[in-house]
Amino acid sequence: MPAPDGRTRITRLREKARYDRTALNALLDATIVGHFGLTRDDGTVVVLPTAIARDGDRILAHGSTGSPWLRRLATGVETCLSVTALDGLVVARSAFESSVHYRSAVLFGRCAPVRSEEQESALDRLTEKLLPGRAAEIRRPAPRELAATLVLEFPITQWSLKVSDGWPEDPPEDVEGPAWAGVVPLRAYFGEPVSAPDLRDGIGLPPSVARLVSETGDREHPAR
Amino acid sequence: MPAPDGRTRITRLREKARYDRTALNALLDATIVGHFGLTRDDGTVVVLPTAIARDGDRILAHGSTGSPWLRRLATGVETCLSVTALDGLVVARSAFESSVHYRSAVLFGRCAPVRSEEQESALDRLTEKLLPGRAAEIRRPAPRELAATLVLEFPITQWSLKVSDGWPEDPPEDVEGPAWAGVVPLRAYFGEPVSAPDLRDGIGLPPSVARLVSETGDREHPAR
Repeated sequence: MPAPDGRTRITRLREKARYDRTALNALLDATIVGHFGLTRDDGTVVVLPTAIARDGDRILAHGSTGSPWLRRLATGVETCLSVTALDGLVVARSAFESSVHYRSAVLFGRCAPVRSEEQESALDRLTEKLLPGRAAEIRRPAPRELAATLVLEFPITQWSLKVSDGWPEDPPEDVEGPAWAGVVPLRAYFGEPVSAPDLRDGIGLPPSVARLVSETGDREHPAR
Repeated sequence: MPAPDGRTRITRLREKARYDRTALNALLDATIVGHFGLTRDDGTVVVLPTAIARDGDRILAHGSTGSPWLRRLATGVETCLSVTALDGLVVARSAFESSVHYRSAVLFGRCAPVRSEEQESALDRLTEKLLPGRAAEIRRPAPRELAATLVLEFPITQWSLKVSDGWPEDPPEDVEGPAWAGVVPLRAYFGEPVSAPDLRDGIGLPPSVARLVSETGDREHPAR
């Protein structure tokens, strides 16, 4: 990553800072929703969640061309994207030392609309992020759908990453006390798929959905 | 809720807007992490995740007195808090209609430090949010721990809430096609607790942790 500037330099709990792109990519790829922050014309800040998909050195996001905040991001205003995974509880022997296992990426930069010839492949990338294998199971986007969709790219250039994955760090006098300490992992999984009420008879579960559920249904996979 | 202003009026997908505090409270109470947005002196925006706990008509957050962004929030700068839950995938018959089940609250206002006589009870509230029953199992905070901790309150006054919990809305020509459609719920659960390496012999799992795991371990509880 580039040298940290005033925004990406980690000032607190520096031992939790990570500088490798591999760890950043893993978080971005495993996390469905990110939070974009931007300022309005009056200078007030707004933070909005949206699905993200990493594509090499950029992050893709999309929505309706009618979305005011997405249109504002498309103008190239400064933005901050925060991507967070909560991985567990750190149960220490005091409230002061108790915390959570988390991974937190904070990225700075400006969005831009993807080039129109790239729009369809970028949308495929977003589709595949949410449900791998799905793009090949459905029809191609219609021209009016593409026209109604704004796809943005956000370059991965200025970022910081903080990871909390350690044990409780109680002082000796608390370790000698009666309280339990440890970690409780937080996991996520996809539950039983439910067919739409208007599903026609004879249409079975597609491979994409079956795979998604079987891969996370064993409860051994971490939150995404 | 108060009349929506320019920031809380929902401009897109208005049918997903919710106006009842009960639904807002349910989201705030079930979600561990929120994202605060604020601007720096140079006008650039930053978005940072932190644990939140609702206490009546306010939201509590805390951290180190050494945290620059927490200290800035404490000065009462305008902020936006975004609280999001991802509840499932909406698998439609086209990419265009595919989306996710989510609950998204966006709140505006200014933080303030809690009054010093309230600090300890506010910290208990945060402890209990993460792990109900824990406050009674551990020692009270030490004066030096209280002195090192900044606790902020954020009033629940200006907010909007959007909930996506419906079925795919495919047009008739897609319903007639070969593709499956439905919803795949996303759930979270707490996994097997792991004792800290320095745990002394003979100290068993506390009721708080045992209850947390048994309540979510049946995989029927929604993500939190």
